[in-house]
Amino acid sequence: MKEVLKLVFVLFIVSCTSVKGPNQPTFGIVIHGGAGTILKENMTPEMEHAYENKLAEAISVGHKILKEGGSSQEAVEKTIHVMENSPLFNSGKGAVLTAEESIALDASFMNGNTLDAGAVAGVKHIKNPISAAIRVMKNSPHVMLAGEGADYFAANQGLDTVPESYFITENRLNDLRRVKKRESDQKVSINLIEEQYFKNQRIGTVGCVALDLQGNLSAGTSTGGMTNKKWGRIGDAPIIGAGTYANNASCGVSATGWGEFFIRSVVAHDIAALVEYSGLTINEASKRVMKKVKDLGGDGGVVVLDTKGNVAMEFNTPGMYRAHMDSDGNLEVKIYRDE
Amino acid sequence: MKEVLKLVFVLFIVSCTSVKGPNQPTFGIVIHGGAGTILKENMTPEMEHAYENKLAEAISVGHKILKEGGSSQEAVEKTIHVMENSPLFNSGKGAVLTAEESIALDASFMNGNTLDAGAVAGVKHIKNPISAAIRVMKNSPHVMLAGEGADYFAANQGLDTVPESYFITENRLNDLRRVKKRESDQKVSINLIEEQYFKNQRIGTVGCVALDLQGNLSAGTSTGGMTNKKWGRIGDAPIIGAGTYANNASCGVSATGWGEFFIRSVVAHDIAALVEYSGLTINEASKRVMKKVKDLGGDGGVVVLDTKGNVAMEFNTPGMYRAHMDSDGNLEVKIYRDE
Repeated sequence: MKEVLKLVFVLFIVSCTSVKGPNQPTFGIVIHGGAGTILKENMTPEMEHAYENKLAEAISVGHKILKEGGSSQEAVEKTIHVMENSPLFNSGKGAVLTAEESIALDASFMNGNTLDAGAVAGVKHIKNPISAAIRVMKNSPHVMLAGEGADYFAANQGLDTVPESYFITENRLNDLRRVKKRESDQKVSINLIEEQYFKNQRIGTVGCVALDLQGNLSAGTSTGGMTNKKWGRIGDAPIIGAGTYANNASCGVSATGWGEFFIRSVVAHDIAALVEYSGLTINEASKRVMKKVKDLGGDGGVVVLDTKGNVAMEFNTPGMYRAHMDSDGNLEVKIYRDE
Repeated sequence: MKEVLKLVFVLFIVSCTSVKGPNQPTFGIVIHGGAGTILKENMTPEMEHAYENKLAEAISVGHKILKEGGSSQEAVEKTIHVMENSPLFNSGKGAVLTAEESIALDASFMNGNTLDAGAVAGVKHIKNPISAAIRVMKNSPHVMLAGEGADYFAANQGLDTVPESYFITENRLNDLRRVKKRESDQKVSINLIEEQYFKNQRIGTVGCVALDLQGNLSAGTSTGGMTNKKWGRIGDAPIIGAGTYANNASCGVSATGWGEFFIRSVVAHDIAALVEYSGLTINEASKRVMKKVKDLGGDGGVVVLDTKGNVAMEFNTPGMYRAHMDSDGNLEVKIYRDE
């Protein structure tokens, strides 16, 4: 952890001392690690630090790529890898489990310059699903692949594969068993699932939006979905327009939350449309769309970046793991609402 | 066929003779049966009549429901059933085949009043996938289910199930074999699939948008996807925002075409956003979005309806099977561009 903080500090100093003219191209990066009922009273200082350090480590990886002139695509991919490889988040290692105690990972990516996009849904053996989404975009004629076919394609692309057991952690198994016990105790029918039941079973989707020195936006999102999900459920994370959208004409968006409401609200594209067609700022647009989600009964959050480097981190839950880093290396890492 | 035309004629006469005040609520319905390289010189009069009669039969079923005060949801569902049950279209019976000579059906539905939505992807045994999408919306806490889980859920809902062989027609097997032969002759790599190869392998997605006397819009889309599709490919049809969208605040949309471009363009929601945020008519919005799809390299079409009963049927291909019927029972059935 010390090394990570040292790296962030060095980056910060290097950035602050660099001479920057008024018209110098800007760049930036913003990430989330999930939104939900994250309350200070339920966290230990150790957990807080673990999340803060991992968010700082992840965003620093992407920031370095951008600072050195790398593409927003690479920054998004490599930043998300850090979070996918950490058991702290509900993506990659540490993903939540389906009702069958198995893994079904979803991810999507979009390039705001070309509007190219790729997504995978329900993969079980690809170590870093965000890379699978990018390979679908780059090396297949399709945008979205699902299930065994997606695993087969990604493995054939030479991506790292792992046994399903790699992703499964003791914590997530316990989560699933708790949820199942509750479901059977309460005889919750599929028609009458109470709100709270879902609210706390899907924190930790990760996402990233980056703007590179060439002025191009990229956005990516990666998740394990919802604990105890059934029947091959697909949430918003792999849906272009819902969980992920990027367009240099408006903004890049990555969403996290109660996926069903984010699909119905076409959240990521709706924010971009309000920016492009109604002239709203990304802050105004994000607030308006998250209000719509709330009015429907859903919750969650978004991170948004535009081509000027403006950032929005909007959510209607008590907390959202999030971080932002600008061209000057200013780093902001937050968990709760009022910090 | 005679019965169908008689039914349409009777509906027309009944509608024309009804007395309608200027403020009488309006209703309407529009359908498509796919867009693509549909050229008069490649059609026989018999084929033309078969398509025209089936389109007229399908839309008349929905029109009757609407006229009698039924919901736009029921009108969309029952209209699409007629097309799913016909081998003429690429949905339900007559769906195109995957690379493994199997079936993978996609469908989605959205209610423009409540913004409720449902979708299935890759089902193999549900006779009418549009009904499965509606059941996901009504009777599950999810919006989108995929693969075996979706089949399992839909079968448990009491929907008609059929063996995979029910859907498979000799024509589609021949199509697949032709495409595969061409692929192997030309050694088309997955990176270098030529445009034409896709262009003609996905005509026939079906869709419907309806406005009921209560002023509520619904939209639905159902497809077999793309001949020779691989790796669990999911197109735009089951994606809320891409292939299907409905919102009483703007319009209802069902799309058909080269799904990858429709996902990247978030076609259905983009049309609705241009109507709601930029004040465009549905005609202007549809033209603008189909132009964007074309500029990206894609093709296809959309049918759109708003709460005033205005209709748009826009496509950038030589033809689109389509029909529209208004409150007065005026029926318009068309196949080619300039009719």
